[in-house]
Amino acid sequence: MDLPLSPLAVPLPALPPLSGVRLGVAATGIRYRNRPDLLLVELAPGTQAAGVFTRNRCTGAPVDWSRAALQGGRARALVVNAGNANVFTGAAGAEACREIAVAVAALLDCPAQEVFQASTGVIGEVLPHARITAALPQIAKELRSDGWEAAARAIMTTDTFPKAATRIARIGETEVRITGIAKGSGMIAPNMATLLCFLFTDAAIPAPALQAALRRGVNRSFNCTTVDSDTSTSDMVLAFATAQAEHPRVPEAGGAVLADFAAKLEEVLLDLALRVVRDGEGAQKLIRIDVSGAISNRSAHRIGMAIANSPLVKTAVAGEDANWGRIVMAVGKAGEPVERDRLSVAIGGVWMARGGGVVEGYDETPVIAHMRGREVEIAVDLGLGRGRARVWTCDLTHGYIDINGSYRS
Amino acid sequence: MDLPLSPLAVPLPALPPLSGVRLGVAATGIRYRNRPDLLLVELAPGTQAAGVFTRNRCTGAPVDWSRAALQGGRARALVVNAGNANVFTGAAGAEACREIAVAVAALLDCPAQEVFQASTGVIGEVLPHARITAALPQIAKELRSDGWEAAARAIMTTDTFPKAATRIARIGETEVRITGIAKGSGMIAPNMATLLCFLFTDAAIPAPALQAALRRGVNRSFNCTTVDSDTSTSDMVLAFATAQAEHPRVPEAGGAVLADFAAKLEEVLLDLALRVVRDGEGAQKLIRIDVSGAISNRSAHRIGMAIANSPLVKTAVAGEDANWGRIVMAVGKAGEPVERDRLSVAIGGVWMARGGGVVEGYDETPVIAHMRGREVEIAVDLGLGRGRARVWTCDLTHGYIDINGSYRS
Repeated sequence: MDLPLSPLAVPLPALPPLSGVRLGVAATGIRYRNRPDLLLVELAPGTQAAGVFTRNRCTGAPVDWSRAALQGGRARALVVNAGNANVFTGAAGAEACREIAVAVAALLDCPAQEVFQASTGVIGEVLPHARITAALPQIAKELRSDGWEAAARAIMTTDTFPKAATRIARIGETEVRITGIAKGSGMIAPNMATLLCFLFTDAAIPAPALQAALRRGVNRSFNCTTVDSDTSTSDMVLAFATAQAEHPRVPEAGGAVLADFAAKLEEVLLDLALRVVRDGEGAQKLIRIDVSGAISNRSAHRIGMAIANSPLVKTAVAGEDANWGRIVMAVGKAGEPVERDRLSVAIGGVWMARGGGVVEGYDETPVIAHMRGREVEIAVDLGLGRGRARVWTCDLTHGYIDINGSYRS
Repeated sequence: MDLPLSPLAVPLPALPPLSGVRLGVAATGIRYRNRPDLLLVELAPGTQAAGVFTRNRCTGAPVDWSRAALQGGRARALVVNAGNANVFTGAAGAEACREIAVAVAALLDCPAQEVFQASTGVIGEVLPHARITAALPQIAKELRSDGWEAAARAIMTTDTFPKAATRIARIGETEVRITGIAKGSGMIAPNMATLLCFLFTDAAIPAPALQAALRRGVNRSFNCTTVDSDTSTSDMVLAFATAQAEHPRVPEAGGAVLADFAAKLEEVLLDLALRVVRDGEGAQKLIRIDVSGAISNRSAHRIGMAIANSPLVKTAVAGEDANWGRIVMAVGKAGEPVERDRLSVAIGGVWMARGGGVVEGYDETPVIAHMRGREVEIAVDLGLGRGRARVWTCDLTHGYIDINGSYRS
């Protein structure tokens, strides 16, 4: 189905070349017609890798492959295809990954275990890997350092716009760049889709330090978002540091020298995560939820996600209904410590319920105006402690049903 | 909004009088116009009570009231109003419960703490209890033993049909009757709605034995169903035994003499629970999910509920798409022990995926025909152990968005 552009779409930023990274795409025709669906990224020798993977127990073969590749901490290439997720494909799925890695290794003259892979699309169909290996030699000849937009587009499935973000960070006196691309419009979508995110930097960062920064950043960004509560079999965030920049040596444990880099990495991750939520299936509104006063940050996060995953809260936002009763319900069902008579709820900065009851005579006018906008802010104060969290989601609309309830074609 | 009758609706059974129970209804106009919205049930002196309540932490005042009343184990009356849930209403909410209980106690000449209460409807609006206490004297004068259908209708909110079930059980040689009424069309619905269920029997069953049978029955019925994963602030299942039948004495611990009664109680609960799912907001199809081969029954139940709560599985069923890949995803995200390569999935009795991969050449024709029906059966075999569970849900359709995304009127 042809999906209209999300009303929450934001334009792609300018994406300058990043030293040590060259990209190329091709159209294999595996599922889509007349559009590139295969991405090859060449990484400079010495590139360090980090990765975070789905917690779904029924992982796809490319997740298993890349998780194993990460043991070495080094990367020379990344291959991504869109349209077939290579999930629940048994021995044939693992074999497809091996064949693709061997083909890339031969083209780039590197070990097969330094070839990372990701696939997104339909579950349960064997990946016709010969179509991929047949397309790789030509891509390898045409790799370019300015191929970022084409790369961001090649990995799309039900996405309605390409997603990328970039920042400059300082390590010592040296400026390094962090650029990421992502795809996804549901944690998993109609047979085909998944959250994939790839980050690249020219900094020289040992794999353990990169892994620690990535995990922390993902916890504060992607793990604070939800579209539909369904965790994909193929989610993957990979980071690659090509070590082309010259800056003070970064120890394996990271530390103070990486402070700005880690902050900017988190910015890039959050920027990308919000672009994914903005392209949530059927999304008409971006919802930010701030939880404060919880007994811990962890408790606040769980309460925030209970609100963000509540179909009744999400449909209320879709209907522009400032229905704080449903927020109270979602807080109460989270399974976290809550004292009803200390609980307060605000929408658009207006506290409508406080201390276990409605705020008599609160002004509904600004709340109604706020609900009509594209970005809705919900705040909950539990009045118990200092725990805080901020999470994001989108509303639940007819568009979600249209996209996911249509017959498989 | 006026909702069309659920296509999954089933007719009300014949509901004969039950000794020790008299019912009456009235229209208070609190929210609805021209329909009864208040139910009073008089219970014979000596009636034993049992109850199971929502786990939501932001409970409504009537939940708090009835939970406290249950400490005594005795009941003389039940009052239920529809249209206002009396939730998040602070001290005024508790005061409303007290006033209503005192009024009923005066009319029926019983202690106020033997008056059970439930409310369902909008959250956050103070219950105008004077309208209820004003209507009670007239109802009390007109109590009838054949008022079951009127009672089942008076407690409805967004329900599209009234719900009741009845069975005969044997205790020793004596036949006793168990009759229940319920309401609910989402675990919680647009501002107004909640799962409420009230059971009545003429048997003489001590409160502790009744409580044990009720809790077990609820775990095997209502706790195996979900409409939208949102747990209400007001869910309540109450059981009353009027002790009018003459049969062998039932000990407080229950035991073998209660075996048939407990089985029939479970039947009534399951019958009512499925009627609620059949009236799930926007439901077009009833979905039964059988999980086997899990490491324990508890694990099987969690996996079943993960499938039943997955919006992607529910929209696929709505679209009549036998999308087993989404079932695999939902199994994998449940957080329970799963071995991908032992997992099998069937729809309508046809195994489409087995041992970690698609069943090559399975016959899709009967599956497509099955998906077009009103009742869809999903089976999952984990191949790990002997744990089993059966759970029920409904599909997720445009109707759900219409009902819950409409402006509050």
